[in-house]
Amino acid sequence: MSKSPQGASSIHAAAGNGLLHRRALLGRGVMVAGAMGAGATGALTAAAAEPLTEAPWSLAPGEVTPPYGHPSRFEKAVVRTVDNPNNEPSGSRARTPHHLLKGTITPNGLHFTIMHAGIPDIDPAQHKLLIHGMVKQPLVFDLEALSRYRMVTRVGFVECGGNSAPLFSNEPIQADVQALHGLASCAEWAGVPLATLLDEAGVDVSAKWIIAEGADAPHLSRSVPLAKVMDDALVAMYQNGERIQPGQGYPMRLYLPGYEGNMNVKYLRRIQVTDQPGMTYFESKIYTDPLPNGKDTQFYFVQEVKSFITSPSPGLKLKEPGVYEISGIAYSGNGRIAKVLVSADGGKSWAEAALDAPRLPKAFTRFNMAWRWDGGPAVLQSRAWDEAGNAQPTREQFVTKRGQTSKPPSVLGFPGHHFNAITSWAVAPNGEVRHVYA
Amino acid sequence: MSKSPQGASSIHAAAGNGLLHRRALLGRGVMVAGAMGAGATGALTAAAAEPLTEAPWSLAPGEVTPPYGHPSRFEKAVVRTVDNPNNEPSGSRARTPHHLLKGTITPNGLHFTIMHAGIPDIDPAQHKLLIHGMVKQPLVFDLEALSRYRMVTRVGFVECGGNSAPLFSNEPIQADVQALHGLASCAEWAGVPLATLLDEAGVDVSAKWIIAEGADAPHLSRSVPLAKVMDDALVAMYQNGERIQPGQGYPMRLYLPGYEGNMNVKYLRRIQVTDQPGMTYFESKIYTDPLPNGKDTQFYFVQEVKSFITSPSPGLKLKEPGVYEISGIAYSGNGRIAKVLVSADGGKSWAEAALDAPRLPKAFTRFNMAWRWDGGPAVLQSRAWDEAGNAQPTREQFVTKRGQTSKPPSVLGFPGHHFNAITSWAVAPNGEVRHVYA
Repeated sequence: MSKSPQGASSIHAAAGNGLLHRRALLGRGVMVAGAMGAGATGALTAAAAEPLTEAPWSLAPGEVTPPYGHPSRFEKAVVRTVDNPNNEPSGSRARTPHHLLKGTITPNGLHFTIMHAGIPDIDPAQHKLLIHGMVKQPLVFDLEALSRYRMVTRVGFVECGGNSAPLFSNEPIQADVQALHGLASCAEWAGVPLATLLDEAGVDVSAKWIIAEGADAPHLSRSVPLAKVMDDALVAMYQNGERIQPGQGYPMRLYLPGYEGNMNVKYLRRIQVTDQPGMTYFESKIYTDPLPNGKDTQFYFVQEVKSFITSPSPGLKLKEPGVYEISGIAYSGNGRIAKVLVSADGGKSWAEAALDAPRLPKAFTRFNMAWRWDGGPAVLQSRAWDEAGNAQPTREQFVTKRGQTSKPPSVLGFPGHHFNAITSWAVAPNGEVRHVYA
Repeated sequence: MSKSPQGASSIHAAAGNGLLHRRALLGRGVMVAGAMGAGATGALTAAAAEPLTEAPWSLAPGEVTPPYGHPSRFEKAVVRTVDNPNNEPSGSRARTPHHLLKGTITPNGLHFTIMHAGIPDIDPAQHKLLIHGMVKQPLVFDLEALSRYRMVTRVGFVECGGNSAPLFSNEPIQADVQALHGLASCAEWAGVPLATLLDEAGVDVSAKWIIAEGADAPHLSRSVPLAKVMDDALVAMYQNGERIQPGQGYPMRLYLPGYEGNMNVKYLRRIQVTDQPGMTYFESKIYTDPLPNGKDTQFYFVQEVKSFITSPSPGLKLKEPGVYEISGIAYSGNGRIAKVLVSADGGKSWAEAALDAPRLPKAFTRFNMAWRWDGGPAVLQSRAWDEAGNAQPTREQFVTKRGQTSKPPSVLGFPGHHFNAITSWAVAPNGEVRHVYA
């Protein structure tokens, strides 16, 4: 730890190219009162507070309070990108705008969603969940019956197996964090432990799997090891306090903390208890990992440790040299985030980021690192470790193991899944941020 | 701990009138497959799973994914009650429907709000925050400048000092939990610690208070002890991940974890550092506590420990005798919830409820308790303790200290604030739930 060249006592270098140990004072675009309008950051002459201007909203009554609130009209750009806006007979993906959000909760309106045949309009009074197969007694639950069981509340992420697939490209695709990593979100889920319901039904001692099925037209189904189900699976009915939204599985979905997105079956209508997996379309044809040797992995469950910087990131331009806060998201399907390192020089040197509390298992953790940008070139990276000891791989490590490709995007994105290597953002002298490989 | 009269091995009485130690199996309205439509809970004959019916949404593609998601049309009753829907020149209150929510996060659209002159439509590009008074250097921050500081994320509640005021009535008012306790909500807030900004300005050693002021027409202002500000006050800009909604203070509000609602000044435009409080309208005329001896308390900051049962509660009818889950919310401005006791016999006997993790300080904590309703009369109560050792008062204790009244509601609610005593719900033999004093 050494004094910065500027010599300010509160500023200490933590790693190369401007990473700072403590919060840095002044120089963050603050204006000295009395100097407003000058836009200067250096004018330190003491000045009396100038009278506050009275804007229109300071002088007249405002608007009526709506029964269900909504964001300001000035935030209308803060939306998901929807890649099938005309609902053509195909899948559709809506991506979370991470570069415009802070904290760790994704608001329900901005949670990512992938639909294979549009969003169903399910009448909750007609929806039922059947548990059958290797059980003593098949059972059927409606929403009223489920409401009488003890629910569990937990914050956790969901991530599509295809999130970040554009990073399989041989060349870095110029896109923002929403386009590259927007198929992951985090919410507070409340629901009944599936273990409770299976106990009601009485699971056969030789059962080893469940097969979960959705009620929408594709009847998407996935197999889940029984051990995971009995550990922490929920039949989730609430998301951030309110009923799950239609794009997320209304009126109920399977929630498997840390497991691949579409295993968290939406519109859950059926759980079949079995002694072997179903080898369904989405686990045998889709979401396998092709390997450079021409083979494929069989089954992929846990979304491995990952992180990315949300600010600065492409589309958020730095106005001028000075002190900024590097901020991002880290998560692991294996548990809590243990630490996140940040680099401003493309991985030559690293400093440990501050992590917001509470660090919850299998949930987004927000990390932060102060950075003095001197106006020169910089390459920003983050790298996370989870409490199980897993390190987020470098791009080189990842490509060696999994390969990369020059194939164009398919309808389901790039022909690769489960990309979790380091993402690199290059800051140009004009303050613009680009996606690079470093 | 004794066996229940029913003798089921997993069911143990925890306290009188049906409170149970562990989750109780069967008897929660579950239907045996093959007996669907009978609505019976007792038909335990084994049956093959009947074919799942294919509803319209199981047979045809669904709807387009919107850029900003919304709840199902079947949830249109899950809204805030707005008591000034025509925006008359007066205050307005919008209350959170706790009886229809689960978990601990209040979704942004359903967070309670109180406006004194409507919701301002603030252009964030024109909004500035001035820090002045007893500082070395007055400073002005716009949103861009604040975005360059390290933000802190924390989950916490906000509660109006007037929440629960109807319970000052001599007679129990027949209303639901939304009407009685709907002026409290909980969210994840992200913002810059005000201490950081005051450090930038350089606080005079003899300063002891700040006075915070809002930019909307009422220019609501409140005084806050400097010690609280330096401890955990935030200039909050994000709520559950997205920008704070207009009803919550867009583009920025003061967030004072655990402190009375309107001290968390919305549309924050000015912080004056002083050596004495401002004795503003809202701290000297409103939100004082009149005492039975004719005097008033001076200053009230911390929202004291409190809990209430959200399910069962008025409006949620019990369909039939059987096992239910009693669920509710507990919180304290002093820190974490230490324990919650629940009674089903009006306080004669108590059992300790299960608390959902994580129990965060100054945030909603969800509690749960299994209960076998035998169809007879029952009075449900909850009582919380916080980690500082404070017990939620009984109604008798509270009324002895603070009084009650037969005066009709004023425009600001009942002439009393900071009601935090036990709430009682009586369950009638027909399953209806009423507000009672017990």
